[in-house]
Amino acid sequence: MTTGGARAFAPGHVTVFFAPHWSDDPARTGSIGGGLTISEGVTVGVTAAETTRIRINGRDGAMDAVGYVLEELGVPAAVRIDTELPIGAGFGVSGAAALATALAGNHAAGGALSENELVRIAHCAEVRAGTGLGDVVAQARGGIPLRIEPGAPGFGALDGIPAASRLEYQSFGELPTAEILSGDTRVIREAGSRALERVRASPTLETLFAAGRAFARETGLLDPEIEAVVREVRDGGGEATMAMLGRTVVGLGTGLTDAGYEPSVARTHTGGASLVIE
Amino acid sequence: MTTGGARAFAPGHVTVFFAPHWSDDPARTGSIGGGLTISEGVTVGVTAAETTRIRINGRDGAMDAVGYVLEELGVPAAVRIDTELPIGAGFGVSGAAALATALAGNHAAGGALSENELVRIAHCAEVRAGTGLGDVVAQARGGIPLRIEPGAPGFGALDGIPAASRLEYQSFGELPTAEILSGDTRVIREAGSRALERVRASPTLETLFAAGRAFARETGLLDPEIEAVVREVRDGGGEATMAMLGRTVVGLGTGLTDAGYEPSVARTHTGGASLVIE
Repeated sequence: MTTGGARAFAPGHVTVFFAPHWSDDPARTGSIGGGLTISEGVTVGVTAAETTRIRINGRDGAMDAVGYVLEELGVPAAVRIDTELPIGAGFGVSGAAALATALAGNHAAGGALSENELVRIAHCAEVRAGTGLGDVVAQARGGIPLRIEPGAPGFGALDGIPAASRLEYQSFGELPTAEILSGDTRVIREAGSRALERVRASPTLETLFAAGRAFARETGLLDPEIEAVVREVRDGGGEATMAMLGRTVVGLGTGLTDAGYEPSVARTHTGGASLVIE
Repeated sequence: MTTGGARAFAPGHVTVFFAPHWSDDPARTGSIGGGLTISEGVTVGVTAAETTRIRINGRDGAMDAVGYVLEELGVPAAVRIDTELPIGAGFGVSGAAALATALAGNHAAGGALSENELVRIAHCAEVRAGTGLGDVVAQARGGIPLRIEPGAPGFGALDGIPAASRLEYQSFGELPTAEILSGDTRVIREAGSRALERVRASPTLETLFAAGRAFARETGLLDPEIEAVVREVRDGGGEATMAMLGRTVVGLGTGLTDAGYEPSVARTHTGGASLVIE
């Protein structure tokens, strides 16, 4: 076992709609749904150390899912997490950090595990932390993922929308993921399942966004401010919807710019999470 | 149905070892094995046309798997296939061309199918053409794929080696894929299954290359010229093995250069095949 350092990148992931699925086994827990991985993401550097210490964008911090990954790997480490994405705003930053930590931590420790095993570890860590149900498997895949069966590799199954696009996003604040997921999710499950059926029947970006808007309305997760921004973009002929779960609007092409906003600009991400070649 | 044009890219794929699996159903036919996707690949432009016409690197040509994909999509088209990779030398060019044609052809026709459906169509076209058994699913995934169950999405299953590296390759000519695959493949099946077990137990690049060399020896596919090049690289402390099926040596880092060759240089490819944003 070497004890060097390694870095990995995982793309951000905006969930557009979802239906949670619970099990006693965290590897079988997860969600079905649809989303977009984005070219901005999370870079994690892992260096073996006596005790685990986590720095986020240059400051000491904590991220439960990252700590659980290192526990599972048995690798105490100094972890540097860097991201330009807003945290808690629906970009799956904790899932990306957990997944990149798994990839970099495994490599730093000599590389005993396969990608599926590392995705499972990161997925289970996210489930245990209560910070996400489907981001990790989506971020491992990349592209525009459809989660057609919930859970980690070996249980879950993915498909994708064969498209690519410039993206824009603007965040207006956080939503409490853990609180929403621990409430009554029957309406979310039903709306999410309907949305997935609709997109599988017509796997295009246009259908994904239309299904996302219907999901946001039907679940009551769409607040008036976000709804107004989405409507402005739509009125200008653009595509936009709400990120689940965050007070964030994501749009295709130049929709947000055309509506007078000054959004962050990114693209759909082609690949999944990966080690960074030093 | 729109009738515009679209472009897609699929990475090259070097199979390091494999075990073929046959079925009456082409979607269940395929191979288990291990390989590397590489940053060089195939770009395909598809424009709807009255009759199908295929140009390869600027010249009229034919590629059965590409023709079968367009038939299955019901999209006669003008197809431009461009690649810097040598054809018939073990880089999965026909698989990449079939997969990129499926992605671009679907998009040009309005986008009715999902990624899994397009991968299935390209995989079945390759099987029907007799030009490959596992390249398409590997190229759809990217990274360093392990094909742990054979066949198209829905039947096959993939894992991956969590690594990334500079690659070098040098080709010394073609091997007749169809001829080898239509012969007695018992020895290949047994050696390929052993190699996969070995790599799954230790999913690193070093084990992949060691398993590949053992596979090449055990199957008798390693000819003396290729064997000598691999040995030179190994003697210099580098990693190299033979591409299956081609008279090509692929190495990590600067192994071939260090041994005095002037190889092509590439990297492991992070993502799978995807549309190109115009």
